[in-house]
Formats: sequence, C-alpha cells, structure tokens
Amino acid sequence: MQSQSAHPSSASVSSGVEPASLASSYRRVRARTERLCEPLAVEDYVLQTAVETSPPKWHLAHMSWFFETFLLRSFLPGYRVFHPRYEYLFNSYYEQTETGFWPRPERGLLSRPTVAEVYDYRCHVDAGMERLLAEVALAERPEVRERLEIGLNHEQQHQELLVTDIKYNLAYNPLRPAYRADLPASAPGGPAPLRFLRFDGGIVELGQGPEEGFGYDNERPRHQALLAPYRLADRLATNADYLAFVEDGGYRNPALWLADGWAAVQGQGWRAPLYWLPPDETDSDDWQEMTLGGARALHPAEPVCHVSYFEADAYARWSGKRLPTEAEWETAARAAPVRGNFVDAGRLHPAPAAPDDSDLPRQLFGDCWEWTASAYLAYPGYRAPAGALGEYNGKFMSGQMVLRGGSCATPEGHARATYRNFFYPGERWQFKGIRLAEDDR
Amino acid sequence: MQSQSAHPSSASVSSGVEPASLASSYRRVRARTERLCEPLAVEDYVLQTAVETSPPKWHLAHMSWFFETFLLRSFLPGYRVFHPRYEYLFNSYYEQTETGFWPRPERGLLSRPTVAEVYDYRCHVDAGMERLLAEVALAERPEVRERLEIGLNHEQQHQELLVTDIKYNLAYNPLRPAYRADLPASAPGGPAPLRFLRFDGGIVELGQGPEEGFGYDNERPRHQALLAPYRLADRLATNADYLAFVEDGGYRNPALWLADGWAAVQGQGWRAPLYWLPPDETDSDDWQEMTLGGARALHPAEPVCHVSYFEADAYARWSGKRLPTEAEWETAARAAPVRGNFVDAGRLHPAPAAPDDSDLPRQLFGDCWEWTASAYLAYPGYRAPAGALGEYNGKFMSGQMVLRGGSCATPEGHARATYRNFFYPGERWQFKGIRLAEDDR
Amino acid sequence: MQSQSAHPSSASVSSGVEPASLASSYRRVRARTERLCEPLAVEDYVLQTAVETSPPKWHLAHMSWFFETFLLRSFLPGYRVFHPRYEYLFNSYYEQTETGFWPRPERGLLSRPTVAEVYDYRCHVDAGMERLLAEVALAERPEVRERLEIGLNHEQQHQELLVTDIKYNLAYNPLRPAYRADLPASAPGGPAPLRFLRFDGGIVELGQGPEEGFGYDNERPRHQALLAPYRLADRLATNADYLAFVEDGGYRNPALWLADGWAAVQGQGWRAPLYWLPPDETDSDDWQEMTLGGARALHPAEPVCHVSYFEADAYARWSGKRLPTEAEWETAARAAPVRGNFVDAGRLHPAPAAPDDSDLPRQLFGDCWEWTASAYLAYPGYRAPAGALGEYNGKFMSGQMVLRGGSCATPEGHARATYRNFFYPGERWQFKGIRLAEDDR
Amino acid sequence: MQSQSAHPSSASVSSGVEPASLASSYRRVRARTERLCEPLAVEDYVLQTAVETSPPKWHLAHMSWFFETFLLRSFLPGYRVFHPRYEYLFNSYYEQTETGFWPRPERGLLSRPTVAEVYDYRCHVDAGMERLLAEVALAERPEVRERLEIGLNHEQQHQELLVTDIKYNLAYNPLRPAYRADLPASAPGGPAPLRFLRFDGGIVELGQGPEEGFGYDNERPRHQALLAPYRLADRLATNADYLAFVEDGGYRNPALWLADGWAAVQGQGWRAPLYWLPPDETDSDDWQEMTLGGARALHPAEPVCHVSYFEADAYARWSGKRLPTEAEWETAARAAPVRGNFVDAGRLHPAPAAPDDSDLPRQLFGDCWEWTASAYLAYPGYRAPAGALGEYNGKFMSGQMVLRGGSCATPEGHARATYRNFFYPGERWQFKGIRLAEDDR
Repeated sequence: MQSQSAHPSSASVSSGVEPASLASSYRRVRARTERLCEPLAVEDYVLQTAVETSPPKWHLAHMSWFFETFLLRSFLPGYRVFHPRYEYLFNSYYEQTETGFWPRPERGLLSRPTVAEVYDYRCHVDAGMERLLAEVALAERPEVRERLEIGLNHEQQHQELLVTDIKYNLAYNPLRPAYRADLPASAPGGPAPLRFLRFDGGIVELGQGPEEGFGYDNERPRHQALLAPYRLADRLATNADYLAFVEDGGYRNPALWLADGWAAVQGQGWRAPLYWLPPDETDSDDWQEMTLGGARALHPAEPVCHVSYFEADAYARWSGKRLPTEAEWETAARAAPVRGNFVDAGRLHPAPAAPDDSDLPRQLFGDCWEWTASAYLAYPGYRAPAGALGEYNGKFMSGQMVLRGGSCATPEGHARATYRNFFYPGERWQFKGIRLAEDDR
Repeated sequence: MQSQSAHPSSASVSSGVEPASLASSYRRVRARTERLCEPLAVEDYVLQTAVETSPPKWHLAHMSWFFETFLLRSFLPGYRVFHPRYEYLFNSYYEQTETGFWPRPERGLLSRPTVAEVYDYRCHVDAGMERLLAEVALAERPEVRERLEIGLNHEQQHQELLVTDIKYNLAYNPLRPAYRADLPASAPGGPAPLRFLRFDGGIVELGQGPEEGFGYDNERPRHQALLAPYRLADRLATNADYLAFVEDGGYRNPALWLADGWAAVQGQGWRAPLYWLPPDETDSDDWQEMTLGGARALHPAEPVCHVSYFEADAYARWSGKRLPTEAEWETAARAAPVRGNFVDAGRLHPAPAAPDDSDLPRQLFGDCWEWTASAYLAYPGYRAPAGALGEYNGKFMSGQMVLRGGSCATPEGHARATYRNFFYPGERWQFKGIRLAEDDR
Repeated sequence: MQSQSAHPSSASVSSGVEPASLASSYRRVRARTERLCEPLAVEDYVLQTAVETSPPKWHLAHMSWFFETFLLRSFLPGYRVFHPRYEYLFNSYYEQTETGFWPRPERGLLSRPTVAEVYDYRCHVDAGMERLLAEVALAERPEVRERLEIGLNHEQQHQELLVTDIKYNLAYNPLRPAYRADLPASAPGGPAPLRFLRFDGGIVELGQGPEEGFGYDNERPRHQALLAPYRLADRLATNADYLAFVEDGGYRNPALWLADGWAAVQGQGWRAPLYWLPPDETDSDDWQEMTLGGARALHPAEPVCHVSYFEADAYARWSGKRLPTEAEWETAARAAPVRGNFVDAGRLHPAPAAPDDSDLPRQLFGDCWEWTASAYLAYPGYRAPAGALGEYNGKFMSGQMVLRGGSCATPEGHARATYRNFFYPGERWQFKGIRLAEDDR
Repeated sequence: MQSQSAHPSSASVSSGVEPASLASSYRRVRARTERLCEPLAVEDYVLQTAVETSPPKWHLAHMSWFFETFLLRSFLPGYRVFHPRYEYLFNSYYEQTETGFWPRPERGLLSRPTVAEVYDYRCHVDAGMERLLAEVALAERPEVRERLEIGLNHEQQHQELLVTDIKYNLAYNPLRPAYRADLPASAPGGPAPLRFLRFDGGIVELGQGPEEGFGYDNERPRHQALLAPYRLADRLATNADYLAFVEDGGYRNPALWLADGWAAVQGQGWRAPLYWLPPDETDSDDWQEMTLGGARALHPAEPVCHVSYFEADAYARWSGKRLPTEAEWETAARAAPVRGNFVDAGRLHPAPAAPDDSDLPRQLFGDCWEWTASAYLAYPGYRAPAGALGEYNGKFMSGQMVLRGGSCATPEGHARATYRNFFYPGERWQFKGIRLAEDDR
C-alpha cells in the first residue's frame, strides 16, 4: 500500500531496511505520541468518561507495555521490566498473557502511576528499544521486525484513540474546554454538489497481497469477489446534507431506522450526531458542534462526523441511497492515492472536499472513517496467528461493522485501501462519516 | 420452494389457488397452533421467563392480531375489532401502526385477557377470516393473497417460538416438568463417522427467484456470488462431538473464543450448551439435558443443540474447521429435498442422522437451525416493502447472524433452501446446532 | 390486646383454649384465605408484577409451607411432606432452614405447581393439621400452641398481602380489570373538618405486656418512655386534603422532601399517590384512582392511601405539621376500641371517617396503616427468639419505618394498639395513609 | 461543648469574638485543608472511585463555593464570582439554589478546572473573606457570624471526607500507594481486657442547649428522655476482638445478621472489614490492612474500623451484647473531656486505648466514629431552618443511622458530646468502629 502513498510511511519497516532506519521509524512514531499529548494538563491524563474510551495516561503506558511485552521481554537479553505490576495494569485485552488485566471500565480510577511515572516508563522502554534496534543481529531477526511493525502500527492506532478520547473527555465537561485554541478553521462556503461515480464491478481482487508491505492479518488473504455495477458518491455527506435529515424529522421517524438503531435513538435520546449542540442548548441561534478547538458553528461544507452506523444507515435510507460494501469501497479506493486530511495536517477536524475534476471519489482517505454496509468478518481463508498477538484482530469478528479510509485523527502513513477498521454499530466517538452509494441499473 | 418438498406445504397459497383451498390452508395452519398448546396448563400460558421469549398466551393473541390488523381491518367490510386495546397489547414491534405497543419485557406481567378470552379472540378472528376467504372477489385480490401468505408463514414462525418458549419456561422451573411425557426417544447408539463433502464453488445463484413460490423479502432478489471450492460436514455435530470439546476445557480456554463470546462465557457462567445438566447438578453420574419430555441422559448421536453462535464458532475453531457461509450452505441445499425432522414429526427434539449413502449432506432440513458464518445483511438490490409489513425483516439487519435449514420445532412446509433465519450471536433458546465446513485446497 | 376488641379474634388461641376451639380457629382463618381468592382467574394466581409483591399462588403455597415446616414436620408423628422440593420453592426468607429458597424476584416465573396442585397441597396440610389438633396431647403442648398462633397470624398477614398484591397486579394491567365488580362505594360528600386532639404525654408504658394475649416478639418487652404533650389529628388525611398538596406543586418543590424522597420523586416520576390517575391519562376531567373495584373518581372524603413515607412526610411538612411517633400513636390508641374498616367488612377500600363526638381519634384501626415518624428498631431489652422463627421480625430492624393501626385489607382481629407494621420508606403498594400530629406548646 | 474541651476549638466563633479573631479562625481552618492536601500528586485530586466519595479537587472547590455562596455573594458589596459555572459544578446538593448541580456520580469525570485553577478559586474566595471579616460592621452581623461558623464547620467536615476519600482512592489502586510514608505505628501489644461501666439512666437531658456554643440544627432542641440503667464497654472493640468473630465464621452465619446486612455480605462478597487484606490476597501469612501509610499487619489492640452498621450489629449479636443508643452514648460522653486521637494528632489511624483507671469510657472521642443503635431522626421539636442552609442536615433524616464521637480523621475542636453524625447502614469508608453496650439488670 505504502507504495501508492505520496507520503513516506512512518510506520513501514519492511524487510531489508537498515536497523538505523528502524530506530528512526521508531523514534518518529513515538515522538508523534508525545506531541499529541503536549496540550494536555496533568488532570486530562486521568479521565475515562465512557467505558469505550481510555485515559490518555493509560494509552501512554499501554503503548510502552506493548513494546515491553512483545519485544523487550522476548528478545532483549537482560531486559528488566520497569514495574512488575504494570503488566497487569496496562495489558488491554490479551487473555493469553499470564497475568490477566485491570478491568477496562475502571481505567479512570487509578491516579498512580502518575503521569511523570508513566513518562519514566516510556523512557525506560525507549532505552530498551534503542538497545534492541542497535544490535544488528537482533534487529534483523524477522520476528523482531514483524513485531516492531505491529508495535508501531499499534502505537499509531492509539494515537488516533488518544485524539478521540481526549475530545470525548473535554466535550463531556460543561465548561467546554478546547484541546488547542489555535486550530485552523475551514473557509466559509457551502458544499459542492453531490455526484455519483460509476464502477463496473465484475470479479474483483480484495485484500492485501503478500508483497504489498505491512498489513494486518484481517486484511488477508487476497481473494476474489463478484460485484454488480455500482455508483459511489464523489464526496462525504456534509453537515448541510445531514442537517436536512435532522430538520426533516429523521430522528423521530422509526420507518427510517434499523430496530437496534431506533432503540438507541430512544434509549439514549439521540437528536443529532454526537457533539452537535442544538440551538436550545447554547446561546446561539444556530447549531454548533464541539470540536477539539472548542464549540464552533456547524460548517455546512464540512463532512458530518461522529455518527453511528445506525445514523449513517438511516440517513442513507432517507436519501434513497445505501451505504457501500467494503468490497465496493476498496475497489474504488485501490485506484486513488492515499492522500488526505490526516492527523499530521494539524486540523484535527474534517475539512470540506477540495474541488477536483478527476473521476476519482474525493475524501477517500482522511477526514472521516466511512461506515460500510459490511459486517466485520473473516475473509475466506483467514486464520488468526497463533499466540497472544493472534488476539489483535480476529477475536473481534462479531457484532461490528467495517469502516474504511481513515480520519483526520489517523496518522499519516497508517491508512491504506485494504485497511479494515471496525466498531460496533452504536459507537460514535470516533471520527466516522458517511459516503452514499447506489446500485447502477 | 415448496415444489422441491416431498410434503405439501401447509402455508403455500400461491396465486391461482381456489378460495376454498385458501380457507383450508388457513384452517390447517391455525389448527396446528392449537394442537401445540394442548398439553399446556392454564398457568403455562402466562409466563415470560426471559426477555426474548413471550408467554404462549401472548403468541396466541399476537397471531390473531396479525390477521386482524393486516387483513380483516383492511379488507373485510364491516369487520368489528374484538377489543380496542388488543392492538396495543398484541402488536409486537410494528412502529408504523398507530397505537404503539406494550413493552416487550413486560409481556409476562398481564393475567388478563385470560386464556379463555384469548381463545375467544381467536374464534372471532377465525370467523372473520372465514367470511373474508369465502368472498371470492375478496379472496382473489392479490394483496389479500399476499398478506394471507405472510400471515400463515407468520403463524408458522410463532409455532416454532411457542415450542421453544415453552421449553424455556419449563426448563427454568426447578421441578423440571415435561411438556409431554410421551415423546419418543432415539434408539441407543453412537454417532456415525463424520465425512466432509466437496463442493466446487464458482459463480453461484443465491436467493429466491420470482417464480419460486412464497418467500420473505429478505431472501430476494436472486443474485450471483463467487465461491471458492469448499467442503461441508455430511451431518450435524453431535452431543458426543461437543462433549469432547467441553471435556477438553473448551469453556475455559479464551484462545478459542470471540471476544464477545468469552465475555458471555464469563458473564453468564456458561459451562455447556443451554439445557445441559452437568453431573454435579443432578443425581446422575453422566451429563443430562432438559428436553420437552423432561430431563434425559445426553444421547451421543443426537445433534448438539441450543448453542450460541459463539459456541458454534469456538467449537469449529477447536475442531480446526470453520462454520459455512450462508452462500455455501444454500448452494449445497439447493440440491437436496426439503425433508427432515420437523415439528409435525412429533419428536420435538433433534434426532441422530439416518444412514445415507448419497453424496448429499444429511440433516440439512429440520433437527437444528445451523449457524452460518454470515451476518444477517441485505442482499444486493434488497429493498424493504413499504408500510408496516416492511418492518417484518429488514429492520433487523444489524448485529445478527444467519441460520439455515429449520429445526425439529419448525412446521413442515415452512423451510426451504433460501430461507434466512437470524438471531443475535449470544442467543441459545432456539434449536440451533452446528455443521462444520472447511476450505478445499 | 384482643380483650379490648369488640370483635372476637379469629387468630387468638391463648392457653387454656380447648383443642376443638383451636381447630375451629384454624379453619376460620384458613377459610378466609380461600374466600379472598374466589374472584381470581387461574391466570391471576401466577403474576409477580413488582419484586416486593408475590404471586397469589405463591402466597397460598407459602402459608401451607409455614404450617408444614414449623408444626407438621416437627410435631406430627408420621407426617409425610407433600413434595420434597416445595420447601425450596415456598420458603420465603428463613435462612436457618436447610434448603435455601427460590429467589424472591423470580416467584412469578414458575407455572408449576399449578393452582390446582397448590390447593392439593393446602388440603394435604389441612388434613395434617386436623390430625395434629385432634390429638389432645399434642395440641396442648405449649410450643404447638405458640407456633399455631404464629402460623395463624402469619396467614392473616399474607391475607393482607394477597389483597394488596392482587390490587397491584390488576392495576398494572392497561385493561384496568376489577377484582370484584360489586364492591360498595362511599356515599358522596366532602371531608369532615380536621381537629387536633391533645394528649398529655409524660411517662408512658409502651409495648405488650406478658398477659395481653398474642403479640409478636417485636412488640415486647413492655417498657417506659417519656413523651412531651402532643396533639393528634382526629382523622386521617383525605384525598381532598392531599389533592390540595398535589395542586400546590407539592411534587415539584424539593424544599418539602427528604433527600431520598426527592430522589424517588425524580427517579420514578411520582406525580401523585400510587393508583391515582391524572386527568391526562384517562378520558375523565377529574382525577381517578384504581381500586379493587376498578377505576373510580377520587372521593374527597376517603383517606388518601398508597403513599410512601416520603410523601406522608412531605405532606406533613407542607401542612406545617409532622407525623406522630409510634409512642404517641400507641398511647392514644390504647384508649380506643379496636374497631374499624377491616377486610371482613368487604369494602376493600378506605372509607370516610364516620361522624363522632368522642374525644378519641377516629380511624385509628382499619382503613389505612398510618406512617409514623419512628424507625423500626428494637425496643429496649428486645431479644429475637432462637431458631428460624427468630427471623420473623428481628432481622428487618434496619432501614424501615413503623406503621400502625391496620387497614381495610387487614383481617378482623389481627390489629391491636401495640402492633408494629414496618416497610421501607419508598414502598407504596400497601394501604398506607397519613395522620398528622403536632407538638403541644 | 467546647468549654469542656482541653483544646481550643478552631472553628468556634461565638458572638462577642473580635473580627480579628474571626479572621484568624478562618485562616486556621482553611490552612488545615491545604496541609492535608500537601502529600497529593495532581492526579490524586481527580479521582472518584465510589459514588459516595468525591475527588479531592471537588472538595476543595466545594468548600470555597460554600463561602462564596452563603457569605460573599450575600454580604460582601461588589463581590465578583470567580467563574459563572462553578456554582453549577460545585454545589453539592442544595436544591434551593437556582442553578441545579452537576450529577454527583460524575464528579470524577471532570479534568477542568485544573487543580491550579481550583487553588486560584480558593485564593479569590480567601481574599473576599478577608475583606468581609476586616469590615467590622459586616463581621459583627449575626447572620455573618452564624454562616461563618457553619462554613468553618462545613470545611472541617470536608477535611474529614478528604482524608477518607483519599484513603479509598489509594486503597482501590492495586499498587497500594501510601498517602504518607512517615505515619507513626502503634507500639506492639495486645488489647486491654474489656470492662463494662454502669450508668444509671433515668430522665436525662439530650441535645445541645442554647448557651452551649456552636452546634448543628440536628443537635437541637435540648430535650428529655427516659433511660433504663445500662452498661457501656470501656473501650472500642479491637482488631483482635473482631478477628475472633471473623474466624468463628461470622460472615458465613446468616443468623447473626440483619436481612439487609446479609444481602450486603452476599451481594458484595464481604469477608472482613473494608481494607482488611486476608492472607490469601497478600504474600503475608497474617491479615493485613490498608492504611493511609500503606499496607500493614493488623494490630491486635487497635480498634477495628471501616465496618458498616450491619457488621457492628452482627458483631454485637455474636458477642451477646448490643450497640448503645445515641441517648446512652451522649449521657456517658457528657461527663468526659473532648480529648482524643483527632486528625491533628497526625496518626490518621485509630490507636490502642491508653491505660486509664478512671470510671469513664476511653476512646469516646477520636479514633473511630461509633455506630449507635439509633436511626437518624428529628429530635422532638426539631425544625429545619428556612432556605438552602436548611437542607444541611434535616433532609437526610431517613434510612441512616447515628454515629457518635469523631475519628482520627476529625479535626480537633469539631467533635462534641451532642454531635450527631449519620450514614447509611451499609457504608464503610469512614473511620467507623464499635463500642458494645448491654442492659443492666
């Protein structure tokens, strides 16, 4: 995938790369984590405001735990673990390690280790990693390279979670604090007209092939599928598009919703996407939304984000369209460069689609993860790897839906056309948006 | 579909059939409901022991409500509803009717109407239906025929639920009462050896075509898909097969389970399929299971049933196999006659696979619904019908898995190769079993 | 106590009474239970609509279990228990018996034993009791007499619970069925003016003395207390009185409520007493209430009932008064005859206070249990009896408040001036009302 | 009360005191809060590990809010509130203020205001208070003095809660951090023998009289009660005493427990007091307990603490004794000096009873709050004050039990013989212990 990218992948450590370069990749990825934490107050590191989020402090420690557990303890002779209980505290969900783990819903109930201690842990692990990567004989072992790659991609995933969890924590606070006061705003202006682009379908190749660089197990094996001709929207659904649905009573009409979605609307009192602030809750006359830069007026041309699958599906039904399958999405995305509004762009919010005359859909990468109509299941021939790392992706293959493309919180170089993200259909705290599709007939 | 069946379909009322025959189909289906209720005490009609089950009394009233709402109120001139509040009490989940509905978890909190009053309601509706079907001009209207067909199939579905809900209610009771004391037992003997039958795959046709008789909207449209070669087990997994998994520590090894499945194992204390009684809970030295005939020794050759998707998936992983997709299952089943151990056979329990020299898988129909590896989603080109009846199937297309083939509680003539049943992956109270599959390579 | 009563106590079996008379008391009490059940449909026996209520069928079986466990198994030679599992199913909460008990919240999840079987159990126990009471040598043993007396009083308590639980079950049903259609209504007319009667206080004697007939352990020992002069309302607060509180915004003003009470108002959406139907929920222009005779217009002169302690306390605060302590109530009631509107009067609803020129408070007994300002705690010198029967009263001495006087659902002869009833402050399903008090200064 | 004290009351600001002295009291009380927070890491300020606890940061802000709301906004001309939303965030439960309040269970979900901002708020309020107290004409107004006194006592109460909430938060953490590593330990040695001291009873005076200095509304009015002769243990029950109960199976014998207590034992898995660590949970051979100095071996002579009312009651029953009533306790304590192991002693843990030849009970003040057998209810003649401050004590008068005497976390000068503390019977996180009593007959 990374060969298609206009940007060098910070996490790519494919075989043949020099150990020095490995260390450099490691440092580059790790440094981004620290940059993302810079705006935080110490107190911000402690909170867990929803069970599916984690305290920033926990993310930090967990990322180090990953390198410690899967690399340093296994491969670095003489490595001494930083603290004997951290394995228990900072393992996320790996059942096949020995110690069990602290319950996920209680991650925000721990003031110790302190933030400073967590950074000490980070330094300790970094020092170990530098030693490991400096040893050519070690750094060239294939299992070291493979685990290093997973570790760096793992850290990138937690960088995205850091951003979205921080957003959730701050938006929860009635003082509505901003993560950063200096985030850029989109230029004024309404959305571009929506066009649908045609794709032929036929027998297509899906998933990542063996020589395509780093990919997760769940993207493999490469396999064939049969697609009917279809059409994809050339841009994401915008706030203006979605507001029309809201104002048309979309949240009050059960005929538009999946049964589980309607239960969520009623049970949780949904009236709009997460973070939208209706006029009756602010002193504004218009809708606002919470962003990482604080509350702002809803921008009509920015993509709607923080919607659940249920909302995406209801919006599509109301529009007379549907969501694309992951096969349709991937087939279209294979032809496009992996460019877009990623976290490194520093916007931390989806941006309006740029004008474009090409026949390629815009905003495929970055901005918002795009809900697909596909359940997250194994590809034909999939086998999870053995051991604890086999728990990384495979054990989540029930009840979740696939999202594609990456978001404004995704690190540059982490996205690719074959990448399969997955969340439960009711979850909204990630940057998730909507691309419409329809049959071509 | 029914043309493939060796048995005349009691619910088939395809166009061209005489009104007299319609009435006869109606009576035949309705009579089975009453026969299934015969062994019940009045008290048995009232209970709801789990939120996903319903009281038999509620099922009875709801089946009549369906005919009253979708046929009598719409088409029978001068029809007078039996009771103005029954629409509220006995609507199940149709949001697009006007009155709302009594909350599902509280169906067992109503002693009135009494059982006798519910049977009066049934008689009232039957009398209306006889009048409707006796009017040739009415009975030949296509929308009447279509709704009648749905109504009869709806009643058949609730016949199956009646059986499974009664089983759940009785098994919940520590007195372990039997529904019927005279149910036949399987002959002694161990399971037949397990064979895997090869299928070529290729581009296959799935779903029901327009001329194939009655089918639900979710079975359509007929469409193509591409399958790699695969192999299917020639029979269902047996109690003996599954007991080996249990005794090998299957319920204690997280590496075998999906994450949501492992959470269910731990949260609900699963140690075996629903209704299995471990030796330490009975005065027996061996495993027993609750059946509709009371507690019995586990029969080694009978198919394991009342397992969740999580258990089916874990068992397949432990076996080094996988579950079939619905496309694989349907492709194999298209070639087989729709024969099997259905509710009309009067066993009310899955039976050992009969010896068979053919190259067709056995037990495809009847015995146990078979969990597939496919999520319950729309077929390409699917559109739900307009109006309240459009809520029948389409709104459940999230979070559930497809099961195929029917069970020992399914009415004769209700099953077909294209039929898509669906349940949440953790649900176990239906007769659900396991057929293994594997790639052919 | 019963010596003060104008009515012979059906449950009194004090020493020296002939065995024939014991048997006659037994039959009289048991017959009332059956009379109270006569209006029920079989289905009505099964329901448990709130965790603090029990199915009528369960009450019936439990009453028999009490005699079987504490009398027949202990004292009747050769007695054979009716069913070995009933001890487990119908023990309520006695931890010191051997078998444990079926969980209270699940009493409504059992269709078996059927109602007919429960009546068979009752007959079996009655036959045993007749044999026991016919044996003079047995019937005259003090522990038999004592346990018989407790058993009969226990049955009377469950007769009251039968009535209130049936009311709760039927009122839960949106069809609003009546228990009996022939219950008498109160004559029209507004409430009598409210007067306050003065009591001197001083050193008073409280609790039941050793020669006062049957009483529960929690009424003893007799002891002294010091009371300041006080004044008691001469009648219960009426619906008209309480409606003024409701219409004055009583349920919207937190300043009137205890903190736990305000949490209940908000958490459970209380707007009025249990069973009151506001005009916007019926087709009436006025408030109605559910009674055992169905929905009726609120009668202004009938006592308000089905209020929690929180509501009684808030109403008293709004009135500028307070609730009486149990010592104040008992001191006043000692002088009054134990007469009133009990269950045997057949009204099954509180009645307006009858005109009365005496200096005694009216409605002290019957109509509604009266919330006192006293927590349910041990009297000085109290010791619970040894063994399982010691669990009858003593173990509930935390978190509950004392009520006094009996209600329209209390059996004749069961009430007395020293009787201490007790419930949690948020419970409303008993017939509980309000008598105001104030300091005299 | 304070006149009996050997130590000057830091919170006493009775009339006639100079404004300079008022300011000095204010500073002294406020300084203690800051001293108690000194050992905390910033992260420790954020946590709320149980719904009944609050984050230290919240306590700090709430104490300042109290002075701002009830003094500065009412009485200081030109006072400018620090932040318009703090009223909403830091009001605890006063329903009669205008803004409502942030939900209590979510106090730990706010990272902002930061700790530094909360201290800024504190400085802002302190500056306002200095101005207010420097204005003689203001400071001498009776309502200012009265509210100041309440405010200082309020701050003292929150100082105790600070200590107990910090203990709870730290003990929750599996790293078992200490609040302070330098806390003194008790000298080795077993408990002194237990003696019971006799009291005559008779007509006693209870509650605080008008000339006795500061007291809360719930301690008044002074009134009479009648007591039978009784005997009180001369010291608190020790760890050794209570361990005998534990080892005798106290937590496994339902006959010893109130029903609600037994439900707590089973529902919450209680095996010992909160903070006791059984040998199977540590690497020690003996019982340990978490203290503010970290985990320590259980000291046999230290008073048992962190028990619920249910445990205190069960222990008393097992001992063949009972708990004292609050009247009995107060009568005994009136004769004793208000001296003891308070927070200012710097132990932060209960200490063994000192040898004493007097006829007075030891450890009446400090060490542990003592559960009484009395429910927390209004004294005869009690009226809550008008306005929001009337919510301070009166609205909690249901469902809670009275505790007496103060603890090792209570500020010096805050305790007195008439002081009524109150908690729900299942709460354990305060320093609560047990003094036995018995009837004298």
